[in-house]
Parts: sequence; structure tokens; C-alpha cells
Amino acid sequence: MPAIRTVCKVDLEKPASEQPYLHNRWHPNIPSVGAIKDGETVKIECVDWTGGQIGNNDSADDVRNVDLTKIHYLSGPFDVEGAMPGDVLLVEIMDVQPFQDHPWGFTGIFDRRNGGGFLDEIYPSAAKAIWDFEGVYCTSRHIPHVKFAGLIHPGILGCAPSPEVLATWNKREGELIQANKLDRIVALPPLTTNAHAGSADEATKAKVAEEGARTVPGRPEHGGNCDIKNLSRGSKVYLPIHVPGAKFSVGDLHFSQGDGEISFCGAIEMAGVITINFKVIKNGMTDLGLKSPIYIPGPVEPQFGPGRHIYFEGFSVDSHGKQHYMDVTTAYRQTSLRCIEYLRRFGYSDYQSYLLLSCAPVQGHIAGIVDIPNACTTMGLPIDIFDFDISPSTPAKKQDMGSCAFETGVADGKVENGGENSEHSFGGGLTYK
Amino acid sequence: MPAIRTVCKVDLEKPASEQPYLHNRWHPNIPSVGAIKDGETVKIECVDWTGGQIGNNDSADDVRNVDLTKIHYLSGPFDVEGAMPGDVLLVEIMDVQPFQDHPWGFTGIFDRRNGGGFLDEIYPSAAKAIWDFEGVYCTSRHIPHVKFAGLIHPGILGCAPSPEVLATWNKREGELIQANKLDRIVALPPLTTNAHAGSADEATKAKVAEEGARTVPGRPEHGGNCDIKNLSRGSKVYLPIHVPGAKFSVGDLHFSQGDGEISFCGAIEMAGVITINFKVIKNGMTDLGLKSPIYIPGPVEPQFGPGRHIYFEGFSVDSHGKQHYMDVTTAYRQTSLRCIEYLRRFGYSDYQSYLLLSCAPVQGHIAGIVDIPNACTTMGLPIDIFDFDISPSTPAKKQDMGSCAFETGVADGKVENGGENSEHSFGGGLTYK
Amino acid sequence: MPAIRTVCKVDLEKPASEQPYLHNRWHPNIPSVGAIKDGETVKIECVDWTGGQIGNNDSADDVRNVDLTKIHYLSGPFDVEGAMPGDVLLVEIMDVQPFQDHPWGFTGIFDRRNGGGFLDEIYPSAAKAIWDFEGVYCTSRHIPHVKFAGLIHPGILGCAPSPEVLATWNKREGELIQANKLDRIVALPPLTTNAHAGSADEATKAKVAEEGARTVPGRPEHGGNCDIKNLSRGSKVYLPIHVPGAKFSVGDLHFSQGDGEISFCGAIEMAGVITINFKVIKNGMTDLGLKSPIYIPGPVEPQFGPGRHIYFEGFSVDSHGKQHYMDVTTAYRQTSLRCIEYLRRFGYSDYQSYLLLSCAPVQGHIAGIVDIPNACTTMGLPIDIFDFDISPSTPAKKQDMGSCAFETGVADGKVENGGENSEHSFGGGLTYK
Amino acid sequence: MPAIRTVCKVDLEKPASEQPYLHNRWHPNIPSVGAIKDGETVKIECVDWTGGQIGNNDSADDVRNVDLTKIHYLSGPFDVEGAMPGDVLLVEIMDVQPFQDHPWGFTGIFDRRNGGGFLDEIYPSAAKAIWDFEGVYCTSRHIPHVKFAGLIHPGILGCAPSPEVLATWNKREGELIQANKLDRIVALPPLTTNAHAGSADEATKAKVAEEGARTVPGRPEHGGNCDIKNLSRGSKVYLPIHVPGAKFSVGDLHFSQGDGEISFCGAIEMAGVITINFKVIKNGMTDLGLKSPIYIPGPVEPQFGPGRHIYFEGFSVDSHGKQHYMDVTTAYRQTSLRCIEYLRRFGYSDYQSYLLLSCAPVQGHIAGIVDIPNACTTMGLPIDIFDFDISPSTPAKKQDMGSCAFETGVADGKVENGGENSEHSFGGGLTYK
Repeated sequence: MPAIRTVCKVDLEKPASEQPYLHNRWHPNIPSVGAIKDGETVKIECVDWTGGQIGNNDSADDVRNVDLTKIHYLSGPFDVEGAMPGDVLLVEIMDVQPFQDHPWGFTGIFDRRNGGGFLDEIYPSAAKAIWDFEGVYCTSRHIPHVKFAGLIHPGILGCAPSPEVLATWNKREGELIQANKLDRIVALPPLTTNAHAGSADEATKAKVAEEGARTVPGRPEHGGNCDIKNLSRGSKVYLPIHVPGAKFSVGDLHFSQGDGEISFCGAIEMAGVITINFKVIKNGMTDLGLKSPIYIPGPVEPQFGPGRHIYFEGFSVDSHGKQHYMDVTTAYRQTSLRCIEYLRRFGYSDYQSYLLLSCAPVQGHIAGIVDIPNACTTMGLPIDIFDFDISPSTPAKKQDMGSCAFETGVADGKVENGGENSEHSFGGGLTYK
Repeated sequence: MPAIRTVCKVDLEKPASEQPYLHNRWHPNIPSVGAIKDGETVKIECVDWTGGQIGNNDSADDVRNVDLTKIHYLSGPFDVEGAMPGDVLLVEIMDVQPFQDHPWGFTGIFDRRNGGGFLDEIYPSAAKAIWDFEGVYCTSRHIPHVKFAGLIHPGILGCAPSPEVLATWNKREGELIQANKLDRIVALPPLTTNAHAGSADEATKAKVAEEGARTVPGRPEHGGNCDIKNLSRGSKVYLPIHVPGAKFSVGDLHFSQGDGEISFCGAIEMAGVITINFKVIKNGMTDLGLKSPIYIPGPVEPQFGPGRHIYFEGFSVDSHGKQHYMDVTTAYRQTSLRCIEYLRRFGYSDYQSYLLLSCAPVQGHIAGIVDIPNACTTMGLPIDIFDFDISPSTPAKKQDMGSCAFETGVADGKVENGGENSEHSFGGGLTYK
Repeated sequence: MPAIRTVCKVDLEKPASEQPYLHNRWHPNIPSVGAIKDGETVKIECVDWTGGQIGNNDSADDVRNVDLTKIHYLSGPFDVEGAMPGDVLLVEIMDVQPFQDHPWGFTGIFDRRNGGGFLDEIYPSAAKAIWDFEGVYCTSRHIPHVKFAGLIHPGILGCAPSPEVLATWNKREGELIQANKLDRIVALPPLTTNAHAGSADEATKAKVAEEGARTVPGRPEHGGNCDIKNLSRGSKVYLPIHVPGAKFSVGDLHFSQGDGEISFCGAIEMAGVITINFKVIKNGMTDLGLKSPIYIPGPVEPQFGPGRHIYFEGFSVDSHGKQHYMDVTTAYRQTSLRCIEYLRRFGYSDYQSYLLLSCAPVQGHIAGIVDIPNACTTMGLPIDIFDFDISPSTPAKKQDMGSCAFETGVADGKVENGGENSEHSFGGGLTYK
Repeated sequence: MPAIRTVCKVDLEKPASEQPYLHNRWHPNIPSVGAIKDGETVKIECVDWTGGQIGNNDSADDVRNVDLTKIHYLSGPFDVEGAMPGDVLLVEIMDVQPFQDHPWGFTGIFDRRNGGGFLDEIYPSAAKAIWDFEGVYCTSRHIPHVKFAGLIHPGILGCAPSPEVLATWNKREGELIQANKLDRIVALPPLTTNAHAGSADEATKAKVAEEGARTVPGRPEHGGNCDIKNLSRGSKVYLPIHVPGAKFSVGDLHFSQGDGEISFCGAIEMAGVITINFKVIKNGMTDLGLKSPIYIPGPVEPQFGPGRHIYFEGFSVDSHGKQHYMDVTTAYRQTSLRCIEYLRRFGYSDYQSYLLLSCAPVQGHIAGIVDIPNACTTMGLPIDIFDFDISPSTPAKKQDMGSCAFETGVADGKVENGGENSEHSFGGGLTYK
């Protein structure tokens, strides 16, 4: 057997927007960049999801200033031999690895005014942690005394929508935008700015820019940006196929992520290479009754033992004491905050913990969803990712935990020098990805 | 060492409302029914959460007609030696067992007009499955070809609220009720009907009936009805203490439950006995920074291996195709439906699957919660609870799966004889527990 | 479904030798004491393997003086409906529990002159630990700072031999005894003293006493005393059937055991009740190609996570520095000693550790068995059974660990008052069980 | 952080004997080939353990004719900064990977006349399986319908012996050879033929050739060729240090191995690169009471779930029906044979199964080691490495399983054409490695 074929090579020194094997919209007309045989295993290189905008340094100014129109560059699309609409593409993730000469990644908290995140009302500033990879493990100089094995996976994978599926997306998301009364952006319509249609000709490029679905949300018909942390090495994913050849794309590799990916840029984002085996299951959508992707995790997930997690509980009563009706989002936000509060005992700043819960393999469960008015969610924090004992049975000892990287003018998550950051209003947050 | 002391005995032949060791409200004035030493392990008997309203038979009429004012009878409250407000009660669940001579339990789907559940818009009829226990395993004549080990746990445990905490609850839930514009009941205010204040005198009884918090929701300040499936044998729970003596109560034992307990009466509900060790951690609330309970699961949870689950994905686009903004509840409802659809391949009716997903140890995860507008949740269905192969790689073979129990006039979840159940309107659902 | 039928009741107050539902030989003529349906689940009560000779106290004199002709009283034999030679009996262990009013067990080290054990050359004295059970957990006043969940299982189960199989056993073990040149007893021939043939008539009793196989060893043809720690709750065992009705017997219940059960009386021995489901697989021996039992463990074993064990290595070089050729027994003895030495750091005496490694769920693996001249074995000690940190990364702090129970005249495993125990010669050890 | 430093590069095109960074003896005088900082992580390349003698083809003639004096070329030795005798070297295995352009390995059964193996009395011919690697998984055209994730690890690692330790080894192994009365080679004395002393000068080379310990056996004082399958990614190993600088060496990488590595060349042998972090623990041997290495496995082992193994039992009664006294080796041989017999049901030849049990992650446990005269061992075969159902509850269907590779003149493990292989006597087996 020859070495495995690499069907997409990326250049980390070159802007992603100039590389024809990449694209950043979902559209049936983006030209295929390669053909893969039914049953074949190939390697696909990917840039990180910001296309290289974030540097390995100790300032979060790059996170603060990230251009959110230049993200989510996916590798592909690829044609898989014999794939037809109504079939299912069985994608087995044989491996995911960072580039050997690029052994690091990052977790970011976006500034509330540029991206935001799950807890941006409380933590509005941009912050960052750089993670160094050594084999299966990662560590960060910005969050000391933590080391864990990567639950490495792609944040985004899926097949191209058909014109009909795409129209459905644009219609229903457009309706949501139309009806919006929140002071938040609630969905992202097609946007011509910095649309990248791969190797398309000008006419196609224009069409894709005008109609192409943004890559931020996952969507039920094809998966996409699901950010499922357990979709790791050895997993099998069953993807609906909507166009001839399937037109499969993949990107947004994560060295690790917690359930919820709460800080938005919350996984350990990295560039790297994914090895995938492809099989076509004829008529799979009907035979499996498949409306959305399903998957079976692989056998090599890091294992801590059930008793090696501390679980935090949260309910749909918000930080202002207001009771919400069965609001799982509120409950999970509260769960996250309980965990952040707990970690203060050991000297971690809230921003450090917020970063950590985003990227470490925390278990986020829906516990009870039927007992009005309180939804209850839980978050399990693995005890063994810390090199000291965080269990509640032991008295806590505060340590000097240094600091994560902040944007200029912010220290420990607090704005310095009075008014300099007065623009940190709580109403202008955008939530892109 | 002598045999472990039983501090509460229940009588399954007698109405729960007449047993002084039981109560069904949270209130600081409910008299303690016993004292437990700091460090002691005791056994506490519990009735099932309907107080015995549901029978071991093949009709769901009892579920249809359940009196929801006569539920959630808790055993207790118990005083723990030395416990004071601000301390933490460390509760270690040493064991939970059904009564030897009562080796069965039930899972119910409430009629939409009397209780309802997570999917009652689609499955409005009352249905039921009876589960037989043999050691660690359970099986049901109503859902054949399934057997699994119980992840046995209490649905409800917690310490009594202080008057201040109770006032907070009543205020915030009252405000939610006031502001409600949905055609659903959104919360349950205090109710004098069938309030049971244990061994209280008449004056106290009246006060408890008027002010006592209903037991349906879990609440952040003390836990309560959290319905956390992994709070099983060997788990340690750290509970905030709000009144002298802690006044601990427990009930609503579950032989097994899936994440979300989606059918509402969704666990395998049972009567039985729980063995608990109690320890007081002085000043624990401050030392641990504890606003809500935390817990550490035990080491004896059933283990299937990561690759022995099929995971289903759901997004916040509802069954009518409408896009919701980051609505985890909608996403989890869709996830559940994907799983129900999948199980049709093998001959299970939707009601059978709905019951099964409620009570089998399915893993409900929050996957992505930051990618507007779609929240993504997953549900992991253990492959090995079935005695045939449900994996997607194998062609499905429909089997005769019999039927779960239904209310009179309904068969296979469909109303018989035309108009007889025309009152099955979709708007009148109540959601109690 | 009615409560599960109990087919054998034992009386812990009465000598085992007087109870007709018990027996202590393997022989086809021991009369069946009950019939079980194909597919039925029943409960079977069992005495502990010493028949109650060991008391819940702080002296090991009872272990020192144990009568080894009065052990291994098995419950049964039971006829299973339809079972015939050549079939396989599928035995599913639904549960094992100690008696509610007898919540304790013991681990013993036999005196080298009466029973001995795996390390009796080094640890010749009798010692004992009493274990108290609270739900899934056990603790011992004789080995403090340890608590673990029971991997509860029967040490012995199997079907009766046919006359031919029995003859084979007696012949081959007799030949080993004949050829023996060691100064050890190498096998136990039939023995009339205290033979118990259940409810047999006098003639049968005499025949069984004369021919019946001793219960100490497991044997390939039927299993028997395998002492397999993972044969726990939820396990399925496939047993060869040699006589009509199968004549199944079970006994020697263990609350927990380590791989190897090194101290011989090394499990946590207990009296209790086992719940078993029986199924007959017709022609199973041929269809499965079955010469010895096979089994599939259950899903509820205590789980620690792979990284929560410290593994010790041992090789076939003995404590005197002598090189043995590929001797796995020597290697495992050395592995055990390495672990005992390690635990000294924390204040445990060698006898305490020897007891602990016998009964705690340590993992004993054959690592390398082909690299002449050294076999290599490993023993994995679970970190989380201790309530302090035993990991090698932390400086050890010696604690006062009290003492296990010893025979009179011995303290801390050392003989007191000079010559009193001079008979502790190293050559006279018997190894019974 | 820069990319991780590679401290040893190997050339797969060049004879191992000519590469100065390799050696194949344990001796304190072999010159160090590099220095590693205390705390540093480095990459070390390794050849496969035959130094490239085995090819990716369908004949086992290369296995048949392997030169066993040209094996076990280790990379190193390396000096670790500050390491002194009495310290412990903490070696954390961050990763092990095959070479990207060499994505295959092999499992061999040695001919009984040249190497042999654990079952060579029954399976005397040379055979081979080639394994192809795709990410975490491997498959073999020689053993179809099997795929599993690698439990990837080094077979050999350790620090150099001091002159005193080396003398001990040579003395005790020499005494075994002297005393040998078996018709087998029982140990391997120093051998000048093809001794490789790395970059040593001629005088040193001669000394190493004359005195150097062979690398086949693991040894208690330093570890060496332990072939411990769970010493995989993320593991921490604590190694005794006997010479200044530690002089650490590593080699014999395995993509996967079963407990016992029964066919001798039984792992999936491969060339590749190992990433290791080194730390020196001063005075560690005394502080930890360390006579032999200890280790803590990593968290990323493949996990199947306890109930996803079929366990086979074996006892110390050999295939001729002879009873042995507490012979674990005999018991484990019988356990292996039971498993091979079981796999016949599905069409696998015995040689295919023998190869598979050697390299797949089977669990080999010491069950009972105290019940005279029968030791009992178990072997757990993971169900989920097969793409069809091997569980005993299902009727077996024989499939065409093709064949593994054989030496010329042998088919299906049977000698062709009568006498051609009459030299396959059963007495001349050597056991090298």
C-alpha cells in the first residue's frame, strides 16, 4: 500500500483568500477541487478557522481586531465517486493532526463589540490563550497547571446543499432576521464581502457571493459547523448528500473543545491535516430515515473515569435572579459561571477559566428539561487535567496563575485607566463565527 | 458493625398523604422526622413519585387520570447533627434499590391535557411501559428486545429552604407567572390542595400549604428535583444548607433515566430504599464558593464504550421548518425526534421510542451553543441495550414489537373511532411534575 | 411479575455440614435440591466459603486454626429443565448481594502451616482484615484510608462432572501427586473427612466421599473455583454441561477480589445471595467449540480510568536473585512484592498491603511471555481507592495505619517473644482452598 | 515554542548495523549519542526490531530466514542532564507514530527451528501478516474483517546498566544456562556476532561485544524489553538510573500488541518516531522504594466497554491432558488455544488467529493463582475489532478468510508435498528475540 494521498495542500504563509482549494461559503456551484474514490482514504490539509489572523504571542489585540468576514475557510469541495442525492456519505475520521512544524493553537474570547461569546455580558474583553502541542498533550503558558490530551476533531464538515436546500436556509434565516426584535444580530445573511468561492469563475463567484450560505451555523440538512467535540479520531459520520458527487468540505480543526464551545472561538483552534475514509451508502437517506447527520464516536477518546469529574449544576434563573421558563441556554450559562466561580479558589482569573471551559473536554449535559419552570444542565470538569487536586474534599490553596493574554488596555479582564474602554457597552455585541 | 439503621419506613399499601414521614412541599417549618449523626450512614425508604397511583398493568388510563396534586412525596425531612446555615451537607449515595417484593417500575407519557411532556405537541396521548427488575437489569413487556442495567438514582434530594430562600422562590416564580403570555402553565405557585406537611400541627400545616414551594422544579439554591441521571450509586453530592439541622429530604427514586427525562414521567419510576452517608462540611458554602449543588459521580455507572453509541444531532429549526434563535430546547426536541424516526426502522412505534429515550441511559449533550442562529445538541443512544444490531451499517429488519400501554380509545398513539378524543387539542397542555 | 423465587435458603446459625442444600464435593451423584426452568431467574443463598468459621473480631486466631476440611460449601446442585450433556448452560449473573443483616466480610492470610498463600515464604503468619459493607462500598478498620466499590462475584460456579470427567480429574491429579518431589502438597485427592454430599443417602454419601473431586481448584472441563474477579453483576457465563439437568452449583461469594487472589483466602469472603438467570443452549458445546467456560463481563464494573492506576512490573528473577526460566508465577510474586514495598511509604505494614492486594480490584496482567528467560507481569493498583494521594509524583507522608488482625503471639507480622513460633518453618506449608 | 527537536534520525535504506545512533546491547560503555535537558521533550526515530529484514509482501520466507543476531537495534543511548545513579528518570510518552511514508507493519510467527514462539509445538511454521495503517486504525489483507485502533507503544525502553548491574545479569543468566536440562535454549549469553556498540571505538566495541547484555529479555533492574502493551501514548514511566547521565535507549516500536505478545514477533512491529518528555527525579529510587520500573498508563487507550469482550479461560492442564502444578504459562497457553478454537467457527485458520491474538489488544489476566494445582488465566478478546458479530449468542457463519502469508512449502499451516519440511521436528526450537 502506498502512502496515503494528500488531496489538498494549504500554504500557511499565503492568505487563505488566495488559495483556490479553500472556500468560505456553502453553495452547490463552488467547483470541486478533486475527486475521491468510493472507499478511498485521503489526507486533507486545513488552515485554522481565522485563516491565520491570530498569532503565537501574548497580546489579544489580534483577537480584538479579528476580521470576521475572513474566517471559516474550508478545504474542498471534493467529489466522491458515485455519490448521488439521496445517498449517504459515510465519513470515517482516521486521524487529525496539527502540522509538525506548527505545533500550537489558540483559544480566544472575542471582544463583545466584535464577535462576543456565550458570557460576553459578564466578560466583554478580548482574551487569548496559546496552547503548545506535544504529542497527544497540550499546555498553555496562559493557563498554568493544566495539561490534557486532545480530543482532536474537525469543527466543520458536510456536503454541499442543493439549490433547494440552500433556498430553504436563506428563506428561514431571513425570516428570523426580519422578525428580530433583540438588540443582537440573530443570524447572518449572505454577504458579498470577502466571499471566497474557491476556483470558481467570475460569474459563479458572484452568484456564490450573493447566495452562498454563511458557514457559522450548523444546519440540520447537512451538519456543517456542528462543533461536536466527540467527532474525533475513529468516528464515523453519516452525512446526507444533496448534490451529485456530494461536494464534501471540511475545516475548522480543533485540538480540543468543551461541550458548548462557550467562548465562541472556544476550541483550541489549529491548522493541520485530517485523514478521512469515504464510503457511499446508496439510498442511505431513505434507508436510514436520515434528516440530519448521525455519528458513532471512535474508541480513542481520552478517558477519565466517571468519578474523575466534578459536576456543576445550573438552572434557568439568571444572574439577576430572574426566573426564565425552561431556558436551557440560561441554565447552561449559569452552569458555566458556577464552574468559573469554583476555579477562583485556586487562583485562576475568570477569563482564564472561561477560556479553559471552552476548550478542555468538559461534559455538558441536559439533565432535566421537563420540570417547569427550571431546565437543569450540568457541566462535568475533568479533575485530572490539573496537576494539583481540585476536588472539593481538599482545602483550596491559591496559587499564582499568571495571566491569559488580553487586548491592550485591559488587565485581568478589567479595563485599565478609566474611560479608555468606555465603548465597552453591553448592547453592541455581534455574534459571528 | 450493626446492620445499617433505617430511619424512614414507608407503607406502600397506605395513601402517601396519611404517612407522617412524607411530605410534598419545600418549607422550613415542616417538622423533622428524625436525627442523623454527622458521619452516619442510614437507609431511607421512599414511595414512587406518584404515591402509588400507577399500576402494573397494560392500560395507561391510570396515567391519563393521574392526580398531579398528589405527587412527589418526599421522605424526611431529617436533621443532621451539627448542620448550620452556610455549611455544606456532603451526601454520599451508598446504594439505591427497589423493594425486594416490588421488583418493578414504570415510565409514563402524560396526556397532553393532564401533564404533557417534551414532545406532547406530536404525541398527545397517555402511554405507559412497565419495567421488571432482575438484579441490575430491567426489561419491559411493552418495549421488547431491550434490556439494560439501571443507572439507579434519586430524582429529588435537597435541604429545606430558609424563609428568605423560600420567599425568593415564590417571588421570582410568581413574577414569571404574572408576565406569562404563553398558552401554557409556566410555573406552579403554592397550592393548598393536597399539600402534605408531614407531621406538622394544624397551624404549621396551613402555613406550609399556603407558602410551601412546589416540588416540581429543581432550584439553584438547593437542588431539589434535578433529575440528574448520573447522581447514582457511589456519587457524592455537596448540598447547600439553609436551616439549622439541614432538614434533608429525598424521594422520586429512578431505576434509570435518560438525559432530559423527556416524557416528564420519563424515568423508570419506582418505590425503594436509598442508603446515604451524611457528613457536614463546616462553612462549606463559603469555602467552596457554592451557590448550587455540585457532585462527583460514582465509579459503578454502566459503561458501554465510547464507540457503542449512535449519536443523533438536532438544531434549533423546528418541525415546521421555522428557524429559532439559539434555542437549545428546540434543538434537543429535534434531536429526540431524529432518534425516534431512526428506531422506526426496527418496528418500534413512536410512543415506544419516546418512552425508551426517556428512561434508558441516553447521553444528551450540548454540542455547540455559540453559532448563531443554530444551537446544536446531540443524543447518544447506547447500542448494547438492544438484543439485535441497531447500527447504521446493517440493513434494518422490522420486527413485531407489540405495543406499549395506551389510554382507552387510543391505539398505537392514534385516536380510535374518529372523534372520540377530539378534545385532544394542542393548546391545553399543562406541564406538571 | 411476582418477586423472584428463592430456591435455596441457608441458615448462618447452623453448621454448614448439617444443611442439605449445601455440599462440598463435585460428583454426579449428589442429589439435585431443586429444579429451575429454562429461562428462569432465581435467587440462591450461599454461606461464606469457610462455612462461618471466621468471626468479625480483631484476632486472626480463627484464621490460624481454620479447619480446611470444612470449606467451600456450595449451594445446589440444581437441575435446569431440558439441560443435557453437550448443551451449554448460559448463566447470567443478575445480582450478588451480602445479606442485609450481615453486612461484613473478611480477607485472610493463612498461616504457612495451615493453608499458606502466594507469599507465605515471606509472610508466614495468619492475619485478617474485616470489611464493613455500606451499599456498593466497603471499608476496613484493619486497613484504614481505603474505600472501594465491590466488584462482587461468585468465586465458584459450575455444573457437575460426568463420571468420565470425574475419573479424568482424579487420574490426572493423582498422577501429579504421585510424581511430586516438592516439599509442598501439590494437589488434593478425594478425602472422606467431612465430605458433605448434600441430601444424599448413606450409600451415595460414601461414594461421593470416596470419589468426589475437591472444590479447591478450578478445572477446565467445567470451571468451578475460577476466582475470576470480573465475573460480576451482569456477566454472562457459558458453562459446559456434562450430566442430565446440568446439576449447577454455586458458592464462595466475594465482595471483591484482586487478580490472582494472592493471599489465598484473599477475596473479601462473604455470605449472601446471588440472583441468576438460566438458559440452556442446545448442542452449545459443539456449536461454540467449547472445552472450557467462556464469559462476557457485565457493564457495571467499577471504572477508574486507565490513567488512575499505578502499574508495577515483575520478572522471573526471585527474591534471592535467582533467574528462573519464563516463570510467570515468580514474576507475579515479584510484581506483588514491588507493590507491597511501594505502599510502605505511606505507613502500611506489609501484611496490610498483602491483604489489600488480595481483595482490592487490582489488575494482574501477563505482559510479555516470550522473551527468554524473563516473563514479565504487571499489577495495576487503583489510585482512587485511597483517600490520600499515592501517586509517585507526590512526596509520601507516613501515616499511622494501625494494624490488621494477627494470630496470637504475632505483632506486625513479626513473631513475638523469640522462639514461641519457631515452628514457623518454611517447608511445611500446605496450600488448601 | 519551536517545533520539537529530533535527537535521532534513522535511515531505513541503510543497514541498521552501520548507523551509529543505534546499538543492540545493554552496556554502560556504549557512548552517548546526544544530550537531553531535564524537562525537555524530544523526538527519537527508531527502526523496526528486525532492522528491516521483513518485507511488505505475501511470503513468510523472510520471517523463516530472519537473522536473529541482527535484531533489536535501539536508538540511543542519550544522556539526560543531571541524571545520577539512584535518581529516577520520569519518561512521559507524548506520542508514537509510524513514519508517514512507511504506513505499515508486520506480525510474524517464527519457524520453530528459528526463533519459535509460545505455541510453536502446535504451530511450527513461519507465518506473517502485513498491517496497513490509516490514522489510528490498522487492517491486514492477511486477516480480513478485522480493524482496530493501535495501542501504540515502544516494546523496549530503559537506562543503561552499571557495571555491577550488568555483572549481576550475566552471572544469574549464566547460572540458568549452566543448570539447564531442557532441550531448549533458556537464555542468551553475551554474543560477539553482530554486536553493535553504536559509535564506540574499537576497544570499547570489543568489550561491549564480549560483555554486553542481550536485549531480548526485560530485566527487573531497568525494564528493557518489557513488551507492555499499555505503555502507550500519554503514559508515564519511572525508570531506575544506574549510570551518570542515565544513558536512555528506546526501540522496538509496536503499533499494537496483545498481552503476552504470544507469537514472539507478535506485536505489529514498525519503524517510526517516538516523542518523549524527560524529567529527573533526584534520589527517586530511594524515595519511591523503586527496584523495578513502575508506570501510569495514559488516558487515550482504545476503550471497548467491559461488556464488549469475550473472555476465555485456561488452566494448568496441558493439551495432552497432563496436570501441571500451578503453571501459569501452561494455563495461558491453554487460554490462547481456546480462543483460537473459538475463532475457527468464523473461518479463520489457526495461524491467522495466532497472529491476531499476538497483536490485537487482547487482555491477558491472571485470575486465580492460589488454588492448587490449577492456575487459571483469562484472555479477553475485544468483540468490536471484527466487522461481524462474533458473540456466542449468535449462530456462527463461516466466511472465506483467505490466508496469512506462509513460508514456502507450507499452506494453511500444513506442510505441503510430504517430506519437504520433515525437518520440522518439535525439539529444536530456539526462542530468541
